[in-house]
Amino acid sequence: MTHDIAVVPGDGIGQEVTPAALEVLEALDIDFLFREAAAGDAVKAETGEALPQETYDLVASSDATLFGAAGETAADVILPLREAVDSFVNVRPARAYPGVDAVRPETDLVFLRENTEGVYSGHETRLSDDLSTLTRVVTDSASRRLAEFACEFVDDRGLDEFAVVHKANVMRETDGRFRDAVVDVADAGGVETQEVLMDAFATHVCLDPTQFDVVVCPNLAGDVLSDLAAGLVGGLGLLPSANVGPDRALFEPVHGTAPDIAGQGVANPAAAILSAAMLLEYLGHEDEGAAVQEAVEDVLEEGPRTGDLGGDASTDEVTAAVIDRL
Amino acid sequence: MTHDIAVVPGDGIGQEVTPAALEVLEALDIDFLFREAAAGDAVKAETGEALPQETYDLVASSDATLFGAAGETAADVILPLREAVDSFVNVRPARAYPGVDAVRPETDLVFLRENTEGVYSGHETRLSDDLSTLTRVVTDSASRRLAEFACEFVDDRGLDEFAVVHKANVMRETDGRFRDAVVDVADAGGVETQEVLMDAFATHVCLDPTQFDVVVCPNLAGDVLSDLAAGLVGGLGLLPSANVGPDRALFEPVHGTAPDIAGQGVANPAAAILSAAMLLEYLGHEDEGAAVQEAVEDVLEEGPRTGDLGGDASTDEVTAAVIDRL
Ligand SMILES: CC(C)[C@H](C(=O)O)[C@@H](O)C(=O)O
Ligand SMILES: CC(C)[C@H](C(=O)O)[C@@H](O)C(=O)O
Repeated sequence: MTHDIAVVPGDGIGQEVTPAALEVLEALDIDFLFREAAAGDAVKAETGEALPQETYDLVASSDATLFGAAGETAADVILPLREAVDSFVNVRPARAYPGVDAVRPETDLVFLRENTEGVYSGHETRLSDDLSTLTRVVTDSASRRLAEFACEFVDDRGLDEFAVVHKANVMRETDGRFRDAVVDVADAGGVETQEVLMDAFATHVCLDPTQFDVVVCPNLAGDVLSDLAAGLVGGLGLLPSANVGPDRALFEPVHGTAPDIAGQGVANPAAAILSAAMLLEYLGHEDEGAAVQEAVEDVLEEGPRTGDLGGDASTDEVTAAVIDRL
Repeated sequence: MTHDIAVVPGDGIGQEVTPAALEVLEALDIDFLFREAAAGDAVKAETGEALPQETYDLVASSDATLFGAAGETAADVILPLREAVDSFVNVRPARAYPGVDAVRPETDLVFLRENTEGVYSGHETRLSDDLSTLTRVVTDSASRRLAEFACEFVDDRGLDEFAVVHKANVMRETDGRFRDAVVDVADAGGVETQEVLMDAFATHVCLDPTQFDVVVCPNLAGDVLSDLAAGLVGGLGLLPSANVGPDRALFEPVHGTAPDIAGQGVANPAAAILSAAMLLEYLGHEDEGAAVQEAVEDVLEEGPRTGDLGGDASTDEVTAAVIDRL
């Protein structure tokens, strides 16, 4: 069976780390058909559109997508692309690696971020010269779907609980609904839940990240708290992510376009390659996914390393070292 | 001139650290008239109301309030009390102290948190069995008032810039309005602004907190990011805060009721005493405020220390040590 993969490198270092991830996938004995499409600042400058319709359509019809990064237009690109794969959950592992300088080297978390609603549903209104509003949306259905995914996710990992982050002491109706729906599904599935207020989570994860494993969050909380965890493990350069939908998924490094180093061939491809490892697991190639992940871990520990990790290796050298270990 | 001070110890360790802060104020040569009032879980259990009207009225008519902590009813108590002093800004310094184990010992930040709107304005609706919404509110007037305060605040400290946190790439209309209003006021006042996305701030403050000094935030962002900074400096036990309004203000430690240690006389009074120092500064007693703050810093460095900081001193011993140094 051939897997149809859309490849959307985007802008900046997206153009460097996405090919690196592709090289790794091509080194495996798996049938892929890669189709590349454009999105981001560069194509907007050319055509006026950050996300051409054919890119959207390609992503919406492929088995999976490898995305790189987009610049100023990031929100115009990534939010519709998450919709294109009907992604209801953004899976964001945040793990510290041996050999990488981290504020909290014991960090090993996975955020399961609600990926469709909250403040992201985007209904904003300019009511007067003084006043604007945004309608934050929470549904039972989206919260339950996320919780069902979370139950399977912890079960697959041999765990029996997850944390639920919310701010239901203030957002009683909306985050109350989110919390109740998630806890209800977990209860029914025999999974324990640990409730944590969003602000308290921010304190506690700094003080001791080992208190948490899998963390289920509303959309914006997942955005901010996973970036916080990125800070604890030593930067965004290492975090992969998966936007999972019922029939397809989109994989992206959590980092941006890094304009300061773009075009020099020195970007760290680790997050993009780890995203490719998540793609492999998603497509049922668990062994290959695990092998790629281990290869990246070995390279992070032993080098070669890119500049962000204190080394002076190029993207190509790191990529070659990963492939070497497969 | 006598200062009328409302004292609302609340629940749990609020009942221990608030008297400690009072003792310190009483040790100074300043005329205070303290009036105590009840709020929180205990008074709710007794009377059915977490915030009795006479407490609200006392706070709304005093020059300043010292608040302790409230338990389950925290939101029912503190949100109306912030309104009682018409507080438009929550000032939250987060500083690491010599002698206190911190993930990031170089942290020295002050958050200026918008204190009236955002998701806290509280318009929530249950639209159907599946769907709830919350109306997030942002006004130019509140954003500009915060920014004017921020300009004076940095100016008083001999600084010429502040950071503005927002998520205007997603909340374009509401956080766009917030950002534009804040930047506009700063520009007019000759103050530089550094724009930082809320998620990026969470990463960057972990990687290097010295990048930031004064951080101006929407309400929820200020809530979460100041708690994150609390994690970086070693816990909530050290963070004071001031809810400032045009004519009065309310001072509170950022920590909660700590039910695990409440009633044992071992709570760390540092955050409450530092909040009293902010009250002194607010009332124009800058020298005394600075003296109290230095005394707390000395005690944090040299001991005695409470259990949260690895010591075994009581609340009373720490308080006595602070007073000793005045
Ligand atoms: C670019 C932006 C819209 C996006 C988000 O807020 O989800 C990014 O921060 C992320 O986390 O992938
Ligand atoms: C108790 C709660 C309502 C409050 C808030 O969200 O503002 C608290 O977290 C704080 O930061 O003072």
